[in-house]
Amino acid sequence: MSNKSSISIPASGRERLRRRGDARRLEILRAAGRIFRQRGYSQAGMRDIAAAADISSGNLYHYFRGKHEILYFCQDRTLDTMLQALASTRGNGGSALERLREVLTAHVHTILDDVEGTAAHLEVDALPADLRVTIIRKRDRYESGLRRLVGEVISEERLPRRDPRIITRAMLGALNWTVRWYRPQGPASVKTVARDLMDFLMGGLTAPGNDGAAGPADSKGGRR
Amino acid sequence: MSNKSSISIPASGRERLRRRGDARRLEILRAAGRIFRQRGYSQAGMRDIAAAADISSGNLYHYFRGKHEILYFCQDRTLDTMLQALASTRGNGGSALERLREVLTAHVHTILDDVEGTAAHLEVDALPADLRVTIIRKRDRYESGLRRLVGEVISEERLPRRDPRIITRAMLGALNWTVRWYRPQGPASVKTVARDLMDFLMGGLTAPGNDGAAGPADSKGGRR
Repeated sequence: MSNKSSISIPASGRERLRRRGDARRLEILRAAGRIFRQRGYSQAGMRDIAAAADISSGNLYHYFRGKHEILYFCQDRTLDTMLQALASTRGNGGSALERLREVLTAHVHTILDDVEGTAAHLEVDALPADLRVTIIRKRDRYESGLRRLVGEVISEERLPRRDPRIITRAMLGALNWTVRWYRPQGPASVKTVARDLMDFLMGGLTAPGNDGAAGPADSKGGRR
Repeated sequence: MSNKSSISIPASGRERLRRRGDARRLEILRAAGRIFRQRGYSQAGMRDIAAAADISSGNLYHYFRGKHEILYFCQDRTLDTMLQALASTRGNGGSALERLREVLTAHVHTILDDVEGTAAHLEVDALPADLRVTIIRKRDRYESGLRRLVGEVISEERLPRRDPRIITRAMLGALNWTVRWYRPQGPASVKTVARDLMDFLMGGLTAPGNDGAAGPADSKGGRR
């Protein structure tokens, strides 16, 4: 792309500046993630984020127009990481069950990681409408990828018929809920939590189930 | 309690008035639940709630001092219903597994029910600090009751050792997450969703598990 700058900086210098800006942006997002986790999104102020990122409030506004924009970029990065994990397992030779376990383990680490993780992942409603649409679209893409993978497990493992939508959402709920209760100072490491959750969720998916009950009642009957 | 009213209303009349007030309050909470579900708590206004409850805004403030107070009473009622479900299964003769399934089925119906349910159940952070403390205490009481029940299932069914805290929270996450995605107009009834979730969660709890892996790694190791 051609990009004529009025200030004459050699291309390599411009590139360096851009990179430095990106690195700074990333530092700010990490600091914001910490603050969001500590105080909750609604209670966090731009001033807190600036302090945590060790820059002035004025400088913070140079990088992000407001808390909404920071939240947006936090969620966008989180979803990119998750989509990447989903993509990277494709064709890695593992069974669908192994791949699902891998993707969901990455999911837990992504949202709980000390440095990168952010409870703000769930605060989609706090975004202004235009930014929200982009995030929801990306989130839907991730969810439908997971749903396909759950469907693959069901057919590969010849499991009793069940609704992959409900199971996928149950899994996402169990995983995303961790940001509400997990404390890094607590007794369990992220690795332990992820492993216990995986044992539980994969156990639920591959459980023999109530053959009869999983039949036509999948759709709404006449009565509710 | 002695309560000398300056207006002379016979006791039975006062009682009738009180009851009428309680019924009105309940109607308002139900209307608020609908509005919270439709627009999200942060987007809902007192005016919307008043319109949905078919009363004037002024009259609404006669019953509740603000949106926070409505939210508080919504959550308080929801938790009371859940605690009741937990208490009523005790000593009903069923196995721990049956009782857990019963309580968690009631949980899904409580939060998704068309009339009574409210997505606002999760918006604990939106409460002012003093009200939040009361709700969190009640929620903790419910969660520890569930945890005990999960522990009972593990010992009654002689399941491999696992952490009831993580499993209980995984279950709560899977259930509470439904308020984010469940739509009454969608393909599945609350009953179907509850049944599929129960099959999945009970399957996860009673799955044979990785015997070896569930050992001492329950606590944080030297490395993280």
